Amino acid sequence: MSDDIKHEPSTLTFNPLDPEEFRRQGYKVIDFLTEYYKSIEKYPVRSQVEPGYLQKRLPKLAPDDPESIETILKDIHNHIIPGISHWQSPNHYAYYPCSTSIAGVLGETLAAGISVVGFNWISSPAATELESIVMDWLANMLNLPKSFTFSEGQGGGGVMMGTTCEALIAIITTARDRVLNQIGCDNINKLVIYGSDQTHSSCFKSAKIAGISPNNFRSVKTTRAHAFALQPEALRAAIHSDVKKGLIPLFLCANVGTTSTSAVDPIAKLGEVAKEYNMWVHVDAAYAGNICICPEFRHVINGIESMDSFSFNAHKWFLAALDCCCVWVKDSSVLTRTLSMNPEYLKNKATESQQVVDYKDWQIALSRRFRSLKMWLVVRSYGINYLRSFLRGHVDMAAYFEEMVVMDRRFEIVVPRNFALVCFRLFPVAVISRHQKFLEEESLNELNAELLESINSAGRIYMTHTLVEGIFVLRFAVGSTLTQPHHVSYAWREIQDHTDRILARKIQSWGC
Amino acid sequence: MSDDIKHEPSTLTFNPLDPEEFRRQGYKVIDFLTEYYKSIEKYPVRSQVEPGYLQKRLPKLAPDDPESIETILKDIHNHIIPGISHWQSPNHYAYYPCSTSIAGVLGETLAAGISVVGFNWISSPAATELESIVMDWLANMLNLPKSFTFSEGQGGGGVMMGTTCEALIAIITTARDRVLNQIGCDNINKLVIYGSDQTHSSCFKSAKIAGISPNNFRSVKTTRAHAFALQPEALRAAIHSDVKKGLIPLFLCANVGTTSTSAVDPIAKLGEVAKEYNMWVHVDAAYAGNICICPEFRHVINGIESMDSFSFNAHKWFLAALDCCCVWVKDSSVLTRTLSMNPEYLKNKATESQQVVDYKDWQIALSRRFRSLKMWLVVRSYGINYLRSFLRGHVDMAAYFEEMVVMDRRFEIVVPRNFALVCFRLFPVAVISRHQKFLEEESLNELNAELLESINSAGRIYMTHTLVEGIFVLRFAVGSTLTQPHHVSYAWREIQDHTDRILARKIQSWGC
Repeated sequence: MSDDIKHEPSTLTFNPLDPEEFRRQGYKVIDFLTEYYKSIEKYPVRSQVEPGYLQKRLPKLAPDDPESIETILKDIHNHIIPGISHWQSPNHYAYYPCSTSIAGVLGETLAAGISVVGFNWISSPAATELESIVMDWLANMLNLPKSFTFSEGQGGGGVMMGTTCEALIAIITTARDRVLNQIGCDNINKLVIYGSDQTHSSCFKSAKIAGISPNNFRSVKTTRAHAFALQPEALRAAIHSDVKKGLIPLFLCANVGTTSTSAVDPIAKLGEVAKEYNMWVHVDAAYAGNICICPEFRHVINGIESMDSFSFNAHKWFLAALDCCCVWVKDSSVLTRTLSMNPEYLKNKATESQQVVDYKDWQIALSRRFRSLKMWLVVRSYGINYLRSFLRGHVDMAAYFEEMVVMDRRFEIVVPRNFALVCFRLFPVAVISRHQKFLEEESLNELNAELLESINSAGRIYMTHTLVEGIFVLRFAVGSTLTQPHHVSYAWREIQDHTDRILARKIQSWGC
Repeated sequence: MSDDIKHEPSTLTFNPLDPEEFRRQGYKVIDFLTEYYKSIEKYPVRSQVEPGYLQKRLPKLAPDDPESIETILKDIHNHIIPGISHWQSPNHYAYYPCSTSIAGVLGETLAAGISVVGFNWISSPAATELESIVMDWLANMLNLPKSFTFSEGQGGGGVMMGTTCEALIAIITTARDRVLNQIGCDNINKLVIYGSDQTHSSCFKSAKIAGISPNNFRSVKTTRAHAFALQPEALRAAIHSDVKKGLIPLFLCANVGTTSTSAVDPIAKLGEVAKEYNMWVHVDAAYAGNICICPEFRHVINGIESMDSFSFNAHKWFLAALDCCCVWVKDSSVLTRTLSMNPEYLKNKATESQQVVDYKDWQIALSRRFRSLKMWLVVRSYGINYLRSFLRGHVDMAAYFEEMVVMDRRFEIVVPRNFALVCFRLFPVAVISRHQKFLEEESLNELNAELLESINSAGRIYMTHTLVEGIFVLRFAVGSTLTQPHHVSYAWREIQDHTDRILARKIQSWGC
């Protein structure tokens, strides 16, 4: 038969995956990043470009012919770097960190290099099995109950997704269908989602996507007096009021480490309330979940054994590089019942044997990246002991910063610090009263906004803000991989310098 | 004030982002991948491991102390590689390709290395602006109407997501809310989603996630006679029947290159039908959209100007490495109306100026990777001309394979080839009738399944199957970056060898 084989097309002359060319270009990219890390402190932390800056610098059309890696890297240096807000700078204290590491970056490189699409077991068994193993490792590091692990063999286990939003969409959809399967689709508008007014916006966005009526999102009020933690009585009152109206409590998002202030909800007590109403309780520990590998912080998720699901973002504070949201459930069968689709073109013997995990059925998307390879690299490259001491180092630096804030009477700590985020503000009562002035809350907020903009525009450090109980709060989040204590000292001097200048101007404007 | 600064904590002794150590380990990882590409043809394409293989090889717990990159890379070689189904092998013809390249892998490396979280413009202006620019480049390469571009300035534009599923969730949610805002949330159960019975399962999964009742998914039947393309009259009949029942047609997913057989729906005509009912039409060209950069294939999306949205997966056939789903909409304001959330901690002057794009409002998740850096590298590294000739090369190889199938009378082509996917099966009518046997469709299917398993178990090439109109079809998808014509010749000989053996066995079993 092989005699019939004729007209073989000519060989393609260009190989975009030529091994030696890959090595040559790969070294250049590694060198570029090496130089980037060496010089990262030279750049303004928050990019100082104006909207539309890049359009003026790049061609309107894609090139017809190949360009060299040298040209492209030069352009990244000249045109992209100025438009980067340097999240990996040691002087980045904005938002929450997105910490990376050698293992994180190279884990991404290996995953992209091997480039499998691990939607089900057979499409690359190692991708699935490594993920289950590493998720059990992490569960163990977090001291999660065995019911959340594969090793228990009772349907619990973990999955790596991209973001908390993806996790919440998958979980809220699952919780929704668990109830609608009993009471019928027509009742979807009766379902109610609960969180506190500190719950991340992605929870309500996810609920909205899942078709829950926005009228049925309850942002239960928290107060500064309770450090912005959701109070069980307040939750109960909200639920009770809904039940009286004939609505059905569906889902509670309990927060461990809120985005604004790192508030910690009392999850055990909230769980008790939710369980009375058969609600699904998810613990969103996107930020603070990371530090639960340290025994002295683990208590913030005490009570996790009675929750339905738990997630944290390893890309926030676990050296993992964007993205990796680790999610655990106790009963994966409800997840797969909602999210599983089995078109013919994906059918295979391994799936039919029911001896394997097909992660496509645990998440919203079909295709999935090989994130476990990265997490495996991170955990092995640093080891549990070092990861713990690293996170503790950040907490120590935040404590040190907090101490400096406390010592300067012009400032106040707005809420007690829980982890490595300090929430403070300029509150110059003494200065002002000396000049027979009084600042309304609104003027104080403007003053702090002015201070923040002054600091960020200078570009030496980068912080962001939040607003709680009407108070404009400066957030100082320690967590960049490169941050060392001397950076924190430097940041505090920078904040003080801007404060000195702003207050001097203010006093001058009062004609003193 | 700086006199007050005391008790600076001690410097952390270990730097997980030490530049020179990054370089040292980076080179090792690049070397590892270089060797991987060099030796990739040595490995069985479809992994031959048994379920649970990895658990037996790895420790139950994470290590307490750091391990070296050398040890980890050795473990990847020894324990992970055997569990990989090698999507980058030139002998991988399964599913659709997930093509990568030097630029794709190094683009991921650079994105992970710089590691920004580009949820809004201010968080890293370059990430947003580069994405808009590259999406306009790609729109131009695809000859999309100007109404889908930023340069037109009328609200159209493109966004890079992870997967088609993410795109469809965002778009179906948007289409849903556009209607519900007029008719009220209570009518959610009246909304109907249309596609053909060839539409990818992710469309209905996305609709399910968006709270559309599964009773309201219409998989309109297609036939082999029409090459599995959705017929406008069939769509109209389905819509008409629903409208008569008081239901509301919401959304049509039109396919350009279906997963089973690369079927192409007549989108212009389908659009006309859908527009009569004010439906949202999305064109899912996950696979075939890639080749629309070649003018001779562009006609398959003729009529795109009257559609609402369009997407293709650059990670499938554009050398881009997983993941990158490129999505365009004509009216981004409806997208952002549904998906925008603006918590205080993300507020900033650039957003308030309304002069910038905040991509978090275009997608389901908040956090997002710097995918445009990778796409910029890919497009610049190869250029339009080469990308076109590369895709054409794959089509030529598929045509060559198809020709060989046609010349072997034991096989038949099940549907005419459109792009680089050949759908065929063993159909040994002559052989069988010579032995006075007749094979029912079911036995033919079993024969083809047996052939496929025989081929895949041998591990020299990897194909997958589908089932259309009851026919078990072998799919041969050319598209791996490393595939050359001689690989295709080799694959065909491999298929013939297995066929010879299976048919010989079969004839023997008939006692001839």
